[in-house]
Amino acid sequence: MVDRRFFTNYGPFTASELAAATGATLHDTSGEKRLFHDVSPLDRASSEEVSFFDNSKYIDQFTSSSAGLCFLRAKYVEQAPKTMLTLVTEDPYRCYALAAQKFYPIAKLSSDISPTAIIDPSATIGPDVGIGPGAVIGPNVTIGARSSIGANTVLSNGVQIGEDTHIGPLNTLSHAIIGDRVIIHRGVHIGQDGFGFALGREGHVKVPQLGRVVIDNDVEIGSGTTIDRGTGPDTQIGEGAKIDNLVQIGHNVQIGRRAVVVAQCGISGSTRIGDGAVLAGQAGLAGHLKIGAGSKIAAKSGVMNDIPAGASYGGFPAIPINDWHRQTIALSRIIKTKTRPE
Amino acid sequence: MVDRRFFTNYGPFTASELAAATGATLHDTSGEKRLFHDVSPLDRASSEEVSFFDNSKYIDQFTSSSAGLCFLRAKYVEQAPKTMLTLVTEDPYRCYALAAQKFYPIAKLSSDISPTAIIDPSATIGPDVGIGPGAVIGPNVTIGARSSIGANTVLSNGVQIGEDTHIGPLNTLSHAIIGDRVIIHRGVHIGQDGFGFALGREGHVKVPQLGRVVIDNDVEIGSGTTIDRGTGPDTQIGEGAKIDNLVQIGHNVQIGRRAVVVAQCGISGSTRIGDGAVLAGQAGLAGHLKIGAGSKIAAKSGVMNDIPAGASYGGFPAIPINDWHRQTIALSRIIKTKTRPE
Amino acid sequence: MVDRRFFTNYGPFTASELAAATGATLHDTSGEKRLFHDVSPLDRASSEEVSFFDNSKYIDQFTSSSAGLCFLRAKYVEQAPKTMLTLVTEDPYRCYALAAQKFYPIAKLSSDISPTAIIDPSATIGPDVGIGPGAVIGPNVTIGARSSIGANTVLSNGVQIGEDTHIGPLNTLSHAIIGDRVIIHRGVHIGQDGFGFALGREGHVKVPQLGRVVIDNDVEIGSGTTIDRGTGPDTQIGEGAKIDNLVQIGHNVQIGRRAVVVAQCGISGSTRIGDGAVLAGQAGLAGHLKIGAGSKIAAKSGVMNDIPAGASYGGFPAIPINDWHRQTIALSRIIKTKTRPE
Repeated sequence: MVDRRFFTNYGPFTASELAAATGATLHDTSGEKRLFHDVSPLDRASSEEVSFFDNSKYIDQFTSSSAGLCFLRAKYVEQAPKTMLTLVTEDPYRCYALAAQKFYPIAKLSSDISPTAIIDPSATIGPDVGIGPGAVIGPNVTIGARSSIGANTVLSNGVQIGEDTHIGPLNTLSHAIIGDRVIIHRGVHIGQDGFGFALGREGHVKVPQLGRVVIDNDVEIGSGTTIDRGTGPDTQIGEGAKIDNLVQIGHNVQIGRRAVVVAQCGISGSTRIGDGAVLAGQAGLAGHLKIGAGSKIAAKSGVMNDIPAGASYGGFPAIPINDWHRQTIALSRIIKTKTRPE
Repeated sequence: MVDRRFFTNYGPFTASELAAATGATLHDTSGEKRLFHDVSPLDRASSEEVSFFDNSKYIDQFTSSSAGLCFLRAKYVEQAPKTMLTLVTEDPYRCYALAAQKFYPIAKLSSDISPTAIIDPSATIGPDVGIGPGAVIGPNVTIGARSSIGANTVLSNGVQIGEDTHIGPLNTLSHAIIGDRVIIHRGVHIGQDGFGFALGREGHVKVPQLGRVVIDNDVEIGSGTTIDRGTGPDTQIGEGAKIDNLVQIGHNVQIGRRAVVVAQCGISGSTRIGDGAVLAGQAGLAGHLKIGAGSKIAAKSGVMNDIPAGASYGGFPAIPINDWHRQTIALSRIIKTKTRPE
Repeated sequence: MVDRRFFTNYGPFTASELAAATGATLHDTSGEKRLFHDVSPLDRASSEEVSFFDNSKYIDQFTSSSAGLCFLRAKYVEQAPKTMLTLVTEDPYRCYALAAQKFYPIAKLSSDISPTAIIDPSATIGPDVGIGPGAVIGPNVTIGARSSIGANTVLSNGVQIGEDTHIGPLNTLSHAIIGDRVIIHRGVHIGQDGFGFALGREGHVKVPQLGRVVIDNDVEIGSGTTIDRGTGPDTQIGEGAKIDNLVQIGHNVQIGRRAVVVAQCGISGSTRIGDGAVLAGQAGLAGHLKIGAGSKIAAKSGVMNDIPAGASYGGFPAIPINDWHRQTIALSRIIKTKTRPE
């Protein structure tokens, strides 16, 4: 039951529409025309709502649920309550997410161009682009079809934005090439100088940063995140990567496809993150490292060395996660044996 | 001696006015009409200035102070210099803070509505509301009496702001209900999507985030902080909680009343912080935890488990603070005994 | 080979012009009129480009480079390829940085004052000042000659900006005095209240913060950084200090001249950082500490005590760096010896 002041529900949809939108298979096709009005968790869903069952821990919620429609794996179909229609899939949560997106599409800010936006005459604005009040679109900026730019956001000289990309309010982008279907939330700063100085006792000399930030398709970037442009090579964010809030990404960093970087991580200059790697919150990575594809870095870890593909690391300095857990256990023994009053 | 370019002093006030404003008791009522012009620390205050004595460590500063008026506990009255009027209270620092607020009230930005603000005709603006230049007030926004909205701040569709609330410049708020007497500094982003994806090798699917951010009365939120909206339940900040700069608060987090969250903390999704808990700077909390009321978490701790009410924890992973101190001592011994050249 | 959409190259320059700009000495003066068109790394530079050789690790790249001009130390002149002109200096990287700045000067945003900027009539704007669209310049603000203020930036009442200072878009400054040749990137918030409360069970009382932020000449401040104003004393950033992105600087902090503070560091109230100290990324410092001049603090360290001048510290809690390395080694032994299956 969402707050209708903030969310617009595009439903209802039939069971077969939801099957088509998600790729799941309706088990009992006689229900294909039943209408569903909203999404909801298993324990709260009504007979007009859609839910999902993904974790066997919640089997009791599932078998007693009033949900009218449920995404689930084939092996659970027989246990569904009789009032429930079932949509069979190997990935119930993913299907649920897609169904929820059908009810609540990712909001484009608007297709209007505000009369108070400041748009340089040399900018190229595609069809059906929305630009919010006070936004500043600099010379030679290109914005692709159906993209939107939030209020008071500033796109500097030459920035290129793809199609169906949504950039929220109060962002700044310079020296940046942004792909299609990218989401940039708010207060994100992309393309400023990296932190490059020739350090010296008589003063530090700024080294011109001559690269760009290149962000591939389907990337999402959280609020308050900063991404510095490259020194000459580019800073790159790979296709489908998801970056959370307040993350710092240094110059020349490369983030692999579908990598996940959780809030407040810091990635130092020239470090490369492999495809599908996951960095949990507040992790910090030194510069010039190679973090292997599919590796996992625990929250708050301090990574000072390369990490092999597929490995899980944790701690400060970060070590293989099982070693870190052993260390934690060993330390808890030490204080028992060695620090009793002497 | 403040810089008058930046601060307006609303004094002078009489001793009895300051007593009334703070709830302290003027010991020698013959001085009730003496005028005081400013606040100042004990060691610098003049006979026209107000100070406080709260910590017996500074007894020498107190007994030799030239301050004309001083908040103190009853037991120190007899030791006050003869030139000093005394205001007796059980909480001298709190009274001093209230007196200082009388001289330097929390600045409302203005009661004017800038002609360059973009205000949707469907918004409801209470009496004596100030709105800065370039601010964007979206459809169906409500702003209560005497509140102010800073320059270039963006309030999206349906946001509700209470009375006497001050929202600085360059903030964004969406999907949010804000109480009375709330202070939101600058560059704060409230209400964006939480970081919710159905992760998958072929790409991560965004899960619509259908909750809100609900901020209760008397909350203060520092600059650069990000607060994600809930997934369906709300993200909630309890009455009187104080949040510092650059804090990340994930979806569905609940922060208790009068809790204190110091700069750069990160609180992962669905974690609940009890009333009056204190999180020192850069602490990181995993998701789905219960942090007990009145507990204290040391700076930079990494909290991976629930914490009982009233407990003090520190370290990474966080453990009871005394154990952590023992661990630190034990480690310092280990390097003495075990790592000498072999 | 920079992307000309984003960077304007002010070259070409002759070898003697580059010698003059950097203080290096052209070894073979017969080449003084040769023209150079760009800067580039040793392994990619062409005969029309300028490079540098600073690290003997790259001797092979140097001896086989096609670069037309190279900054290097005197002892390497004889090993230069015959096609290379050499510029002799004790600090090749610094000279290279200066040469690169000649080709790509630090961009002033513009010398125009946008008609959509909101400038209070009482503000004093020096000659050749640029002010971007939507910027808000409050009462009694002063902006020195040749400085620029980015789009949608907000300078509050009385803020003073020196000469040749560049303040990017979407910053807020209040209660601040800023020197000459300062660079403030984007989304920086300077001068808000420090986090000061008289804490109490019945609610925390805000303590008015009556100081300022004073930033000396040649300071650079990265995007998303927050600097709170002092409580009565000022928060101070010394000449030539370089602050990276997303750093938190508390009230009354003093940062020494030419100190370097890397991304996501947090410095608690009243801590003083000595001249030339270097704080690596994500370091956190408790309040009221003295960090000695020239000291070095490793990334992610948690500093809870004073640090002597010139010392290197690391870890959490931070200890002398060699001790910390020993601790790390000792811990790796412990898990080998003590945590085998029992």
